[in-house]
Amino acid sequence: MAASSLLRSLTRHARGASAYHRHQPWSPFSTTAAAAGAGARRDEESKGFPGLGPTAKGEKARVVVLGTGWAGSRLMKDLDTGGYDVVCVAPRNHMVFTPLLASTCVGTLEFRSVAEPLARIQPAVSKSPGSYFLLARCTGVDPDAHMIDCETVTDGEKDTLEPWKFKVAYDKLVFACGAEASTFGIHGVTEHAIFLREVHHAQEIRRRLLLNLMLSDVPGLSEEEKRRLLHCVVVGGGPTGVEFSGELSDFIIRDVKQRYSHVKDYIHVTLIESGVRLVQGIVKDVQPNKLILDNGEEVPYGLLVWSTGVGASPFVKSLRFPKSPGGRIGIDEWLRVPSVRDVYAIGDCSGFLESTGKDVLPALAQVAERQGKYLASQLNRVIKAGGGHADSEAEADPGPPFVYKHLGSMATVGRYKALVDLRQSKVR
Amino acid sequence: MAASSLLRSLTRHARGASAYHRHQPWSPFSTTAAAAGAGARRDEESKGFPGLGPTAKGEKARVVVLGTGWAGSRLMKDLDTGGYDVVCVAPRNHMVFTPLLASTCVGTLEFRSVAEPLARIQPAVSKSPGSYFLLARCTGVDPDAHMIDCETVTDGEKDTLEPWKFKVAYDKLVFACGAEASTFGIHGVTEHAIFLREVHHAQEIRRRLLLNLMLSDVPGLSEEEKRRLLHCVVVGGGPTGVEFSGELSDFIIRDVKQRYSHVKDYIHVTLIESGVRLVQGIVKDVQPNKLILDNGEEVPYGLLVWSTGVGASPFVKSLRFPKSPGGRIGIDEWLRVPSVRDVYAIGDCSGFLESTGKDVLPALAQVAERQGKYLASQLNRVIKAGGGHADSEAEADPGPPFVYKHLGSMATVGRYKALVDLRQSKVR
Repeated sequence: MAASSLLRSLTRHARGASAYHRHQPWSPFSTTAAAAGAGARRDEESKGFPGLGPTAKGEKARVVVLGTGWAGSRLMKDLDTGGYDVVCVAPRNHMVFTPLLASTCVGTLEFRSVAEPLARIQPAVSKSPGSYFLLARCTGVDPDAHMIDCETVTDGEKDTLEPWKFKVAYDKLVFACGAEASTFGIHGVTEHAIFLREVHHAQEIRRRLLLNLMLSDVPGLSEEEKRRLLHCVVVGGGPTGVEFSGELSDFIIRDVKQRYSHVKDYIHVTLIESGVRLVQGIVKDVQPNKLILDNGEEVPYGLLVWSTGVGASPFVKSLRFPKSPGGRIGIDEWLRVPSVRDVYAIGDCSGFLESTGKDVLPALAQVAERQGKYLASQLNRVIKAGGGHADSEAEADPGPPFVYKHLGSMATVGRYKALVDLRQSKVR
Repeated sequence: MAASSLLRSLTRHARGASAYHRHQPWSPFSTTAAAAGAGARRDEESKGFPGLGPTAKGEKARVVVLGTGWAGSRLMKDLDTGGYDVVCVAPRNHMVFTPLLASTCVGTLEFRSVAEPLARIQPAVSKSPGSYFLLARCTGVDPDAHMIDCETVTDGEKDTLEPWKFKVAYDKLVFACGAEASTFGIHGVTEHAIFLREVHHAQEIRRRLLLNLMLSDVPGLSEEEKRRLLHCVVVGGGPTGVEFSGELSDFIIRDVKQRYSHVKDYIHVTLIESGVRLVQGIVKDVQPNKLILDNGEEVPYGLLVWSTGVGASPFVKSLRFPKSPGGRIGIDEWLRVPSVRDVYAIGDCSGFLESTGKDVLPALAQVAERQGKYLASQLNRVIKAGGGHADSEAEADPGPPFVYKHLGSMATVGRYKALVDLRQSKVR
């Protein structure tokens, strides 16, 4: 078949030069746009308001959720979308089933098995005219105006996508933006180590491991260099670090032995645990090819996975709400941010204020999911009582507080075996 | 479970500073190392020869294959590994089933379905002591010395992997390194367009498409910008371009309608075909957000896929062998490079010399695979006749030449339909 006979088509798109500005110049929120209703997205833009304006009486109230982790996903799943519109603002359009993430690094599971698109958790964001998933980060909050500032996420896009700024007005705002891996201020961690919290981390680990296996087989390489390339170092002896080390060991025992038989005797795994004191730990410095421990020893590595604890992200640190011990967004027993109206926080980014007398809960998926579920039922109850909109009076009685009951912990240890701890000891 | 009680381990790897040079200084090939046998990889390194030295009498002859495409994979699959060791040097450790690549871009198929690891095609590269897959590129050839220069592939590695240089001696050398997408010298193609020849291209297309769909739903975006973001332009009306456009259309009609209902009316596809004259074509310039056609028209796009024809790669252009019309490595009717001994070329990188009186075959998978099969049977026949080693006398009679018979062409057009052309017209 001659190429030209298959198809010829040419569409004319000639437009003026002004068509190629990537976004409208930003103009301040105008109260005229405030009265616009659900069908007025085009009107908002033409009136000079880049964003979603406040909902009008008679329209559904809008819950804005920041984050798609365990807490945010559970909240959005259970929310009554007959009563609320849901607008989710997050840099990630899927939830990650974190307990199985370590298993994707070596192919025990595929990446798609641990990533659940938000649109399947809460279909309204795809189908409902007033509900959205927006691939963006929140950059600031104005609680009096009930407004957040946002910026689209275009990390890694070469040249064509600058971030767009826009605003979203909320009736209810929920922080569910999680925590961040702690580097303890150790130089070189961010540049040279791979974390294990997202699918792209697991993909990078898998890619690097396979690359090192292939490169180690190149003729002329020194023994020392072969061993360095195939030394996998895992820092952090908690569940993530142990599960990943277990998966890696299985991979070595079964797969490397068969498929990389030339180099199977060189590959080894080291797990480094910093100890119970939770200080800067034993790793003092991280360089491109080796760790330096605090006793001066050097540990050459080809792959470095950093799976220590988590802490408050820079975004959470930047928020001017009162904080819990440990620096998370401070909440009361009803998961509200008590200094303002209509703002809540759940999951790893939140912690009970000291004034509640309750200890900050651990940063666990179980806690986050339970809080998401509780908050959804709270918000759904409010809608039924005729409330939901900003500054509504109908929400004077918050009902029963959130109480966490730990059901147990599990961790895989490789070879399809696991450990289970059913002692209810997590609430300190 | 307290983290510290699960596992504590610390391995001492303290070595001197010299351990951290990433590779041995390269030293020239020494004839002492030449006598080293199959079990002497460590000896080669300690004698200062970074690479695989020539095979000795009594050892298996070594076939070095450059490339893991249709031609190289078929050759390696059929090669008699009882008689030959196979050393494959290529920047890619898998074969890509190219006819289905377009279908992975929108999720009709998964990427893993079109990538076949070389180790499954020819297990000897994993299991046999003298056979290798080396993730590297050939950078030069010395036909008299029967030696190639190589450099490991570490594209994209941030800071820890510089390429290592090494040499490989061959008894038989086969160029199967393929062709490259043609840009016709048009400015901006390499920077802004995505080709569709490798799995990572398909992954990039999928990622960009989904990113644009999400970003187009951001409030405050102009209509114009929404339309630009969701305009997918495909340049090249051959099978690849048409199949990809068909997949994209299916995706729009079925999936975008349901899952991105807010923006379903903005997404559209344009296929641009340059015409039979095969000159620079209608596209004159490619900029980050738009194409310029040669009549001055501007075509704004959010995604640009470049699927025109292929031509000789810079590596092939650099080789000093006589070339065919069109610039491919010149071969005789037995697929040999006739100006030297023990060198062959198959697939898109090869073409009949004018002196054979035969037309250069089209750059098709069918041709490449047939040539790989033929060459394997040629080489296997040689081994049985007692030849195989470099400069062997036993190969005076090359037997029947290679004859290509085209069996037909197929292309999918979306919705699980296809066109088939059974006219035997490909041999011009």
